[in-house]
Amino acid sequence: MARVTDPERPEPERPASVADLGYARVDLDRAARTGDPEVVYGAGKTPAQVLGILRTLHERHPDRAVLATRLTGATTELLGRDLPDAVLDPVARTAVLGPLPEPRGRVLVVSAGTSDAPVAAEVVTTARVHGAGVEQVEDVGVAGLHRLLAVRDRLDEADCLVVVAGMEGALPSVVGGLTGVPLVAVPTSVGYGASFGGLAALLGMLNSCAPGVTVVNIDNGYGAGVFAARVARGRDR
Amino acid sequence: MARVTDPERPEPERPASVADLGYARVDLDRAARTGDPEVVYGAGKTPAQVLGILRTLHERHPDRAVLATRLTGATTELLGRDLPDAVLDPVARTAVLGPLPEPRGRVLVVSAGTSDAPVAAEVVTTARVHGAGVEQVEDVGVAGLHRLLAVRDRLDEADCLVVVAGMEGALPSVVGGLTGVPLVAVPTSVGYGASFGGLAALLGMLNSCAPGVTVVNIDNGYGAGVFAARVARGRDR
Amino acid sequence: MARVTDPERPEPERPASVADLGYARVDLDRAARTGDPEVVYGAGKTPAQVLGILRTLHERHPDRAVLATRLTGATTELLGRDLPDAVLDPVARTAVLGPLPEPRGRVLVVSAGTSDAPVAAEVVTTARVHGAGVEQVEDVGVAGLHRLLAVRDRLDEADCLVVVAGMEGALPSVVGGLTGVPLVAVPTSVGYGASFGGLAALLGMLNSCAPGVTVVNIDNGYGAGVFAARVARGRDR
Amino acid sequence: MARVTDPERPEPERPASVADLGYARVDLDRAARTGDPEVVYGAGKTPAQVLGILRTLHERHPDRAVLATRLTGATTELLGRDLPDAVLDPVARTAVLGPLPEPRGRVLVVSAGTSDAPVAAEVVTTARVHGAGVEQVEDVGVAGLHRLLAVRDRLDEADCLVVVAGMEGALPSVVGGLTGVPLVAVPTSVGYGASFGGLAALLGMLNSCAPGVTVVNIDNGYGAGVFAARVARGRDR
Amino acid sequence: MARVTDPERPEPERPASVADLGYARVDLDRAARTGDPEVVYGAGKTPAQVLGILRTLHERHPDRAVLATRLTGATTELLGRDLPDAVLDPVARTAVLGPLPEPRGRVLVVSAGTSDAPVAAEVVTTARVHGAGVEQVEDVGVAGLHRLLAVRDRLDEADCLVVVAGMEGALPSVVGGLTGVPLVAVPTSVGYGASFGGLAALLGMLNSCAPGVTVVNIDNGYGAGVFAARVARGRDR
Amino acid sequence: MARVTDPERPEPERPASVADLGYARVDLDRAARTGDPEVVYGAGKTPAQVLGILRTLHERHPDRAVLATRLTGATTELLGRDLPDAVLDPVARTAVLGPLPEPRGRVLVVSAGTSDAPVAAEVVTTARVHGAGVEQVEDVGVAGLHRLLAVRDRLDEADCLVVVAGMEGALPSVVGGLTGVPLVAVPTSVGYGASFGGLAALLGMLNSCAPGVTVVNIDNGYGAGVFAARVARGRDR
Amino acid sequence: MARVTDPERPEPERPASVADLGYARVDLDRAARTGDPEVVYGAGKTPAQVLGILRTLHERHPDRAVLATRLTGATTELLGRDLPDAVLDPVARTAVLGPLPEPRGRVLVVSAGTSDAPVAAEVVTTARVHGAGVEQVEDVGVAGLHRLLAVRDRLDEADCLVVVAGMEGALPSVVGGLTGVPLVAVPTSVGYGASFGGLAALLGMLNSCAPGVTVVNIDNGYGAGVFAARVARGRDR
Amino acid sequence: MARVTDPERPEPERPASVADLGYARVDLDRAARTGDPEVVYGAGKTPAQVLGILRTLHERHPDRAVLATRLTGATTELLGRDLPDAVLDPVARTAVLGPLPEPRGRVLVVSAGTSDAPVAAEVVTTARVHGAGVEQVEDVGVAGLHRLLAVRDRLDEADCLVVVAGMEGALPSVVGGLTGVPLVAVPTSVGYGASFGGLAALLGMLNSCAPGVTVVNIDNGYGAGVFAARVARGRDR
Repeated sequence: MARVTDPERPEPERPASVADLGYARVDLDRAARTGDPEVVYGAGKTPAQVLGILRTLHERHPDRAVLATRLTGATTELLGRDLPDAVLDPVARTAVLGPLPEPRGRVLVVSAGTSDAPVAAEVVTTARVHGAGVEQVEDVGVAGLHRLLAVRDRLDEADCLVVVAGMEGALPSVVGGLTGVPLVAVPTSVGYGASFGGLAALLGMLNSCAPGVTVVNIDNGYGAGVFAARVARGRDR
Repeated sequence: MARVTDPERPEPERPASVADLGYARVDLDRAARTGDPEVVYGAGKTPAQVLGILRTLHERHPDRAVLATRLTGATTELLGRDLPDAVLDPVARTAVLGPLPEPRGRVLVVSAGTSDAPVAAEVVTTARVHGAGVEQVEDVGVAGLHRLLAVRDRLDEADCLVVVAGMEGALPSVVGGLTGVPLVAVPTSVGYGASFGGLAALLGMLNSCAPGVTVVNIDNGYGAGVFAARVARGRDR
Repeated sequence: MARVTDPERPEPERPASVADLGYARVDLDRAARTGDPEVVYGAGKTPAQVLGILRTLHERHPDRAVLATRLTGATTELLGRDLPDAVLDPVARTAVLGPLPEPRGRVLVVSAGTSDAPVAAEVVTTARVHGAGVEQVEDVGVAGLHRLLAVRDRLDEADCLVVVAGMEGALPSVVGGLTGVPLVAVPTSVGYGASFGGLAALLGMLNSCAPGVTVVNIDNGYGAGVFAARVARGRDR
Repeated sequence: MARVTDPERPEPERPASVADLGYARVDLDRAARTGDPEVVYGAGKTPAQVLGILRTLHERHPDRAVLATRLTGATTELLGRDLPDAVLDPVARTAVLGPLPEPRGRVLVVSAGTSDAPVAAEVVTTARVHGAGVEQVEDVGVAGLHRLLAVRDRLDEADCLVVVAGMEGALPSVVGGLTGVPLVAVPTSVGYGASFGGLAALLGMLNSCAPGVTVVNIDNGYGAGVFAARVARGRDR
Repeated sequence: MARVTDPERPEPERPASVADLGYARVDLDRAARTGDPEVVYGAGKTPAQVLGILRTLHERHPDRAVLATRLTGATTELLGRDLPDAVLDPVARTAVLGPLPEPRGRVLVVSAGTSDAPVAAEVVTTARVHGAGVEQVEDVGVAGLHRLLAVRDRLDEADCLVVVAGMEGALPSVVGGLTGVPLVAVPTSVGYGASFGGLAALLGMLNSCAPGVTVVNIDNGYGAGVFAARVARGRDR
Repeated sequence: MARVTDPERPEPERPASVADLGYARVDLDRAARTGDPEVVYGAGKTPAQVLGILRTLHERHPDRAVLATRLTGATTELLGRDLPDAVLDPVARTAVLGPLPEPRGRVLVVSAGTSDAPVAAEVVTTARVHGAGVEQVEDVGVAGLHRLLAVRDRLDEADCLVVVAGMEGALPSVVGGLTGVPLVAVPTSVGYGASFGGLAALLGMLNSCAPGVTVVNIDNGYGAGVFAARVARGRDR
Repeated sequence: MARVTDPERPEPERPASVADLGYARVDLDRAARTGDPEVVYGAGKTPAQVLGILRTLHERHPDRAVLATRLTGATTELLGRDLPDAVLDPVARTAVLGPLPEPRGRVLVVSAGTSDAPVAAEVVTTARVHGAGVEQVEDVGVAGLHRLLAVRDRLDEADCLVVVAGMEGALPSVVGGLTGVPLVAVPTSVGYGASFGGLAALLGMLNSCAPGVTVVNIDNGYGAGVFAARVARGRDR
Repeated sequence: MARVTDPERPEPERPASVADLGYARVDLDRAARTGDPEVVYGAGKTPAQVLGILRTLHERHPDRAVLATRLTGATTELLGRDLPDAVLDPVARTAVLGPLPEPRGRVLVVSAGTSDAPVAAEVVTTARVHGAGVEQVEDVGVAGLHRLLAVRDRLDEADCLVVVAGMEGALPSVVGGLTGVPLVAVPTSVGYGASFGGLAALLGMLNSCAPGVTVVNIDNGYGAGVFAARVARGRDR
């Protein structure tokens, strides 16, 4: 059997604030720097690794929530079995462990079509774990304006809007024309052909004719949720 | 076992015209708004979900056709077993349930190569379900002009032409130079290398030197069928 | 002085139906093939060349309109001086010479912003010269929905809609959700940065979530006008 | 002389809330809808047109500021001569007419290099006119970290950060790692070669590894300023 | 006055086969290696520089033709005045000095539209100077098939075909389906919007459904002419 | 059980020269038009389908070769079992059935790296079946010039060169500088990251500084083989 | 059974310095030309093929190391069983057989996130096998500047820096602003959405505002390691 | 006259190490951080501004060279008149003021074609000012291999190679296969059509099959010169 470690190869150096679990290194000081909770990005990690990191973080900070995102079905299943206190959302592909913070301010998450549901759900969970109150309106695509107009009053009551849409990504422009509330647009990879994996929606949102629309990466519900929570917490009325 | 629903997470709000089947929300009023039939987009849905939605829509509107598109093989199989009255087309990957409308006007679907057959068939079924009479000519690629010229008279007799082609997407230009009938071009993802998933055909069609050619998204046989039926119904002679 | 023609160089062959004016070759049989008027594409031609071609075509067919598009300011000025019977539109950058055909059917041209005016005007003139009746609604961008909703009834009364928009190109999706009339979308190059010369609007329109939207090339008001006139003429009620 | 208007061409319809100055149509109700000031987008307008629109808007609303952006040198010169009460900023290419609103909250605009100054200045003016207090830090590019670290305390004191950078667009990631304040990133077209007109900076910011960074279009200082003012006003402490 | 040469800066080394005219370095051995004539690429050179290089090359090889391509109007004018023996083609933007070689084989250059004329003419001159007999057919775009079919017999008589087209670039596919003669396709930058400077035509030609079509760079009439002459000379019958 | 054919759906029309095998339609007259053999494009066809088409074509033309390309492993296996007279090449992924034509002229296929072998082999088989004599040189990448220079004399002896390379696609430029023989370049999809599926090699070849290089689509060994055979047959010495 | 070799097909010619193992051809003289070790690129090769090539090279040069890169899990497993003297690194996906050279100079490999570890490890192993001493610092992303600043002194002590980062690829700019040591940047494909497979990181690094940053292909740890070792060996102090 | 400064607008804050000349802010501490000379990037600055910055920097550091790059013709003219001690290079578009450092090590700059001369000259001047000895070889494009092979010995004698090429960018691969010296490749924007402003050359170089090639931005002779000088200084023998 060959050696799998090379005695001549140097051990890489790592900062002291990183706990090395072998299969992953856990950042233990992010929250201290930014006031945000610890987060485990599940993509590319095995179920056992996600489980291990969640447990480690939870043990260090039992008094506040830890969030895991982009979980596979297998990971969600394992967490459901081994972490009975975790709250799992198979649509959002998230897990939350530990008590949620007091909600401050109100984030309203608006999404266009059924296929955008996973990204919208990731926004909801993320914003809630990051300390905001969250409400959600679904299925208000621009090709069915009457639905959007029916919830128009809700838009102005929010402290921050997150608008999720794939395909042509037109919803943020329409919503942005109806209200002056800060609006974060999330393009999704929903579509085919010339949607080019969400590029069409991304470009549409960046070129919105409604002033004051900002945009995050394709399918980046997590980033939008963090941002919206920060805005909403500060505008809490 | 962890909770899979979060008591603190708000239930998303949905318009009243949407029937929630749990796994999908069915739009019950589109036809009322536009005069078009109900349609189920099969991509990303399980066979059982497609079956359930088709049944729900059919029960609400037993007097008119419901269309399902982009069906997987497994879905087609399930529908064949459980919906004995459905008309299935494995090439078009469509299912139709309920009586077809009276055909008005004539859509002629022209396609270039054997590989374009699924998209062409989706146009045929969609246009027929949306109320147009439909005829079809296949295998008339630009590299074999004699075949196209042999059906030249048929082109002028149509109320709307739908021209389906992959690779370089040249067929709409050639057909568009032969007739003044409204022409919708459908680029397909047939090709490899520098076809970039249908981008070459799409760009070719958008830059057609034949005046009056309009274009839909790559592989969007459904959209072309809807449009062509609307044109043909209005031009019924 | 050097010879500017080469006695050894062969004279290129041209079809008999092309009248050679030296600086340009005029197609004299297009109308016979498709029923459409003669058209001069002004881009890349000198004012004198456009003038000469317009005169030649008008002399051959004094009984019907000839259209010139994409005219520079200098060309428009020359035509205004030397062709007193021409109707010039500096915004559309078009000239029309000869009697307009009887209007059949109704094309409604809807545009989003002030900067889209030249393309919208090109659609209007082209569709009218190609035999359709034309009406126009401007300044109904998606960020000001109330304006669009105010003209909603007009949409259903048209035989064909042409929707012109730059930036994110969302207007066709919104209009397409309000009506079942055939709709041609024209992306414009209005925008900056990540609009990439109209690419964002083009992709947005190709990925429209409203069924039955077809698209032409960026800024191609001429092509949309030809197509819409063909549809409207056939649906004349 | 040819007619420049066509008696057969229909007059386009426009909503009642739009004042038609002939060369431009002025939206008189935007502020009522969103609480934001009136804005004139100067690109593509002649100096006389910008002057006329500014005057019209100012006469209607003498009690609040009107903003003009993207002004050419010639326009700035004309405004300086004919509108003695206007405040002009040749770097930001803006003009402001009428009294500024009371500043609420604090926007901090951070920019990377000297060439980013025009976009940063557009953010400053826009945010101020939209009701926020504004401060600015320049020349803190990522290749000179010590400068950024020297102003670190200022970052946390802001209600909203706007970070402006061209080339690789790395500054928002670095700033975003230092603070939890809401951060809007503005990519600029500063760069050459593989910057592709700001695309590199745009992609860099969209892929930021710092959570909670949102992005606007390339060179869109106006949009970032509007958004940041909305956030800061609501977080006023 | 500052020194414009740096005594410390090394003089760059150059191969002996390059004649240095100060403003340009002339390759004197290319013909020996490949049997092709000397060629001056005019883009980026002043009229005087092109004149000087042409003279130098002609003096070295008075017995064979020298070709200059991509000439500006000013250069053509200067050459017309100072090189009375040169044959100038303002459309092709070429100049030829010295006796043409005996024509061997036959190249047929087929082009689609009037705007493609400069590139087609560059192919004609280049192929002729490189030793082939050349014929030309113009104005046979795919939207007017009857013109192309009228010259169909000519296609089979050629030793090599060069097909020049812009916009959607469909002509090579149609011609390639009519004959088995070797065919080189030249995309041109003719077009606008989604033609992206000739990219649409280039992709169209690379994806041609006609077997045996090869392609050169956008507007590269020179390269196509060199290639076609090589093929035709070898197939001389 | 649902009906899988719709009595109301029209049967698509097909030209008489196409033999319908149910699962595929076989073109029986291509050879008559161009002098080339019948070819079966194996991608997207089942093993049984390829077998059926090969048999049908072979029975119609037992006196000449039929070529099948892009075969999967399963298809190759089935053909090996059921068509004992076929010549199979698992590297080229081709099958040939029937007697090869007399070789005329000489095609030399030059390839850069081991990974380019499948495309190079497809060129070899295609050119041979299309009537040319073929020779091959492998492993002469530009990073090991000595190997290429060792076979330099072979280049000039060919009637047509086909140069196959992936990654940066530099080999055609180097070979093209060594000889004046007609040269067709084939970019392959060999590479990763910024090769973008062969785009880097394609662009490199289109921009070759060696005059007279033509290019085919990425991985299109078949197209290059057809073209080269046509050139070589005509130059047979 | 069909013949799988064609008696009429010519055997491709290969240079003498290439050892043909049947399934692969091994270059035996690269080291002689450049002083670098032999390398096996494992992608696209079966475990048995990699094993065979490694053995062949090791037998020829038992006195120096042979490197294999891009190994699959199955290959690593086979090598672990059959080559007990090999040093395997499952993270770097590399194998090394034979004695390592004496380390000269010092390469410091700096990487941003956990997901960049495989590429960073490939740099480490490659640079070490190519004769440099290597050290490594991990987890110093730009969103956590304090970690990077903690190792700042280490940067200046290196002879060459290799900086590995995905997503926005900002780390090289920050490191490049802290030191004047030669710096090679390696973009990784870590990211999603608008990272476009590493394109965002690649463009970011190419546009770095820190002078003197050079870049290799996406995920090309091998290339960076070779380059850095060459630099470091020559700067050995 | 309107006020051009706004009393309410805050003065932006700048680090103390930046000297504000009004029209530009001069970084006075870069050299201290990295050991490199001060550099003025001339693009976007007026002649008077470049003159002023050069003077300021030279007065602070009369004992060492200051470099200005990307100078326009007008700036070069002004500097020639007002800075008699400056060394100007109109081809490289550079100016150098103050004594050059002692040359350490040897950079060899190799370029492909005449049009690449400005970028190659920028490399030469930059590397020399940054402390390296520099030599240069021009006109050694890959289509004329004999020229490159004639200078082969020179390659191995250098401490760092900089290889400059446009169009297909193949030269670095060929040079990189001939030597093991560290090699930096500089793509230039020389080319047309599918060169896409240097993108083809950039992609070619990033995908080089020669190991150990690193790349800088398109036309970035300055960056390559800085990097090469750093490498060469450290390898001084």
